[in-house]
Amino acid sequence: MASQTLYLLPTSLGEEDSATVLPAAYRDIVVPLRFFFVEEVRTARRFLRRIGFTADFDEVTFVPVNEHNRHLSLDEMLRQQELDSKRLPLQMGLLSEAGLPCIADPGASVVAWAHAHGLTVKPVCGPSSLFLALMASGLNGQCFAFQGYLPADPEGRKKRLLALEAYSRQHHQTQIFIETPYRNARLWETVVAVCRPETRFCVAKNLCMPQEEIRTMRIAEWKKAGPPAFHKENAVFLLLAD
Amino acid sequence: MASQTLYLLPTSLGEEDSATVLPAAYRDIVVPLRFFFVEEVRTARRFLRRIGFTADFDEVTFVPVNEHNRHLSLDEMLRQQELDSKRLPLQMGLLSEAGLPCIADPGASVVAWAHAHGLTVKPVCGPSSLFLALMASGLNGQCFAFQGYLPADPEGRKKRLLALEAYSRQHHQTQIFIETPYRNARLWETVVAVCRPETRFCVAKNLCMPQEEIRTMRIAEWKKAGPPAFHKENAVFLLLAD
Repeated sequence: MASQTLYLLPTSLGEEDSATVLPAAYRDIVVPLRFFFVEEVRTARRFLRRIGFTADFDEVTFVPVNEHNRHLSLDEMLRQQELDSKRLPLQMGLLSEAGLPCIADPGASVVAWAHAHGLTVKPVCGPSSLFLALMASGLNGQCFAFQGYLPADPEGRKKRLLALEAYSRQHHQTQIFIETPYRNARLWETVVAVCRPETRFCVAKNLCMPQEEIRTMRIAEWKKAGPPAFHKENAVFLLLAD
Repeated sequence: MASQTLYLLPTSLGEEDSATVLPAAYRDIVVPLRFFFVEEVRTARRFLRRIGFTADFDEVTFVPVNEHNRHLSLDEMLRQQELDSKRLPLQMGLLSEAGLPCIADPGASVVAWAHAHGLTVKPVCGPSSLFLALMASGLNGQCFAFQGYLPADPEGRKKRLLALEAYSRQHHQTQIFIETPYRNARLWETVVAVCRPETRFCVAKNLCMPQEEIRTMRIAEWKKAGPPAFHKENAVFLLLAD
C-alpha cells in the first residue's frame, strides 16, 4: 500500500492553450494513468483528450466525487462503483474541474482519505486563478486569506465585507473572494458602496484567457471609473485595507 | 504606456527539472525579454541560463529590488540605476527568487507601481510551494490563510499559534505558515506541544524535489510518531482545527 500514489492533477482554467498553464512534463505524468477521481466524467474525458491522452476510455476507471455523493465516505463511494478500496491500482489521479484540485474545490476529502490509507500524495503544478490574481494584484502576498463566497443576503454580505475589511486593516491581510459570474456586478456595487475610500480593491477577470484583465484601484477611484465589463465572466476579487 | 507589459515570472523551487513545474510555453515568454526586475542578479542569471535563455547578458538590464533598496520608491530605484521610468521597454519581466513572484515574496511593490503607471500586468503560471502543500495536505482548500512566519520569541509564538488554532476552529480555516529551515524542529515541537490533540497538522517538505514528503496527521498521532527528518529543508506547515 505504501507504494500507491495519488497524483493531484490540475486542469486548464478554460479553453486556453494548455501549454501556457500546464507544466511541460504534464502529459508524461497523466498518460500512463488508468484511474481518475473526477468531479464530472464528461468534462474530465474532454480535458484528457485535449492534452493528448489517447488511451481507450473503456480501459479507464472514472470515479465521480461531487455534491451528489459527497455525503458518503470515499470507501462507500468506491463500493457503490463496485470497487474494492483494498485493490486499487498503484497509480491514481485526482483531476480538478478547473485549476488546481482541492483549492476552491472539493477534492480535499479524497486527499484526506489517501493520507489515512498511507498513500503517497503527489501534487502536480498548474494554474490557479486565485494565485494568478493575487500575484497580479499588487496587494500583500505575504499575508492573505481566501474566503470563498460571501453571503448571498445583502445584510449578511455587507456585515461580512466590513468584518473582512477591518481584519484586513488590522493584520495587513489581503482578502480574496469569488462570486457566481452572473452576480459580479452586484458584488462590485456592494464592495464599492460599503468599503472605505482608500481600501485597495482588485478585480481580476478571465485569467489566462484572451480577455484577461486585472485592475487594482482604491475604492474612491473605482467609484469614478465605474464597474469593469465582467458580466458572466470568471473573476477573482481581492481587497487590502490600509 | 498602455501597451507596456510587466510579465510576472515564476522560477523553479530549487534544482528540480523545470519541465515539471514551468508551463511548456514559459521559454517562449521569457526569451524575448531584455529587462528584468529581480531579487538577486546572480541567481536570476543562473536560472535564465538553465531554462534556455541564451541572449548576451550585456544586452539585458537587471534591476534588483530587495531589502537593500526596498525603502526607496520604484522610481527612485530606477533613477539610482540611471534608468528613466518614462523610457522603459514595452516588455519587462519580474522574476521571483523561487516559486511565484509576489506570493510569500516581496515583489508586490513592483506590481503596485505597474498598476499605478497603467501597465498591463501579465501573471505567468508556475510552482508555489504554499499551494502544492495545501493541495496535498487534505485540509480545507475552500477557506485558508497564509500567515508567513510565526513570531520568533517562544511566548509570542505560543500565543499566535493558539490564536490561529482558535480562529481555524471557529471559521474552519486552514492556517498556512513557514519557518527558516534550520528552525523546523523547534517549530514542530511547539505546535505539537501547544495545539489540541485532534487538530490536523501537515508538514510538507521539499516540494517538487526528489525528497518530497507530505504528511498530515492529528497532533496526537504526531506525538507518537515524532518529528519528520527535515533539518534545514524547505517546508510548509498547515493546520486545521475541528
